[in-house]
Amino acid sequence: MNKRLQYTVAALVAVGSLTTAAVAVAQQGPKPEQLIKWRQSAYQVLAWNTGRVKANVEGQYNKEEVIKAANTIAAIANSGLGALFAPGTETGKGWHDTAVKPELFTDKKAGEAGGNFNKEANELAKVAASGDVAAVKAQLGKLQGTCKACHDDFRKKD
Amino acid sequence: MNKRLQYTVAALVAVGSLTTAAVAVAQQGPKPEQLIKWRQSAYQVLAWNTGRVKANVEGQYNKEEVIKAANTIAAIANSGLGALFAPGTETGKGWHDTAVKPELFTDKKAGEAGGNFNKEANELAKVAASGDVAAVKAQLGKLQGTCKACHDDFRKKD
Repeated sequence: MNKRLQYTVAALVAVGSLTTAAVAVAQQGPKPEQLIKWRQSAYQVLAWNTGRVKANVEGQYNKEEVIKAANTIAAIANSGLGALFAPGTETGKGWHDTAVKPELFTDKKAGEAGGNFNKEANELAKVAASGDVAAVKAQLGKLQGTCKACHDDFRKKD
Repeated sequence: MNKRLQYTVAALVAVGSLTTAAVAVAQQGPKPEQLIKWRQSAYQVLAWNTGRVKANVEGQYNKEEVIKAANTIAAIANSGLGALFAPGTETGKGWHDTAVKPELFTDKKAGEAGGNFNKEANELAKVAASGDVAAVKAQLGKLQGTCKACHDDFRKKD
């Protein structure tokens, strides 16, 4: 290949890559800022509902309210939150600057942490249906343990 | 009852009411700003998931993703969002100033609007489980109709 042809090929490859990248971004749909806002929102809804379960096991217990709260937690856990941590969302601002540590995107432990959360969230929904207050309290503790573990490893301190 | 006694009783009743009100606020738990933040978050999670269903019925259909999204929408619809519109949250700032109109707290139509949303959200979860793309598309339209109706009546324009 002569020099001019080499340059032409290189230029075409570069343009091709840019086009591919542009198409990929277009197909990705929501922008990183939107994804970050959604994930911050999802964790707020989780906080609301774990708070409700906590208030019930520590105060007057309303089985139906606990079931609703636990089902919401489980549904969000099962919703595929990983999609909200897509490449490009390592930094940026949703409602506020993301508090995620870069390690979340590279450390295999992050996937395990997510799996642990899912497991305990689904178990909480099962236990909530039984209405066994002591069991719900114990299971809430296990769930909160998975929250804390992930926050310790992958969320920046305030 | 003589005049002085009347005043004393009135004063004690007034103090009593204030104390009762203070206790009620303490027992209520989360502050209005927190409730507003949670409800703004809940609607963001709904937007994320209705957007996912929309992207699936308009593009490549992934049955499992639609089921996850629809289940999340239904769980949030069933979670008891009314608790996030408690007295004291008519105005105020969560992530941003609430966009709710005061009528939402007084108009009986608001309860109906919430009920319509719940009904169509639960139906979407059922239809999503069937994997019938045309039926999911039609049901998503019905669900979005309930969103729009409530926004038209009870959400301030941007």
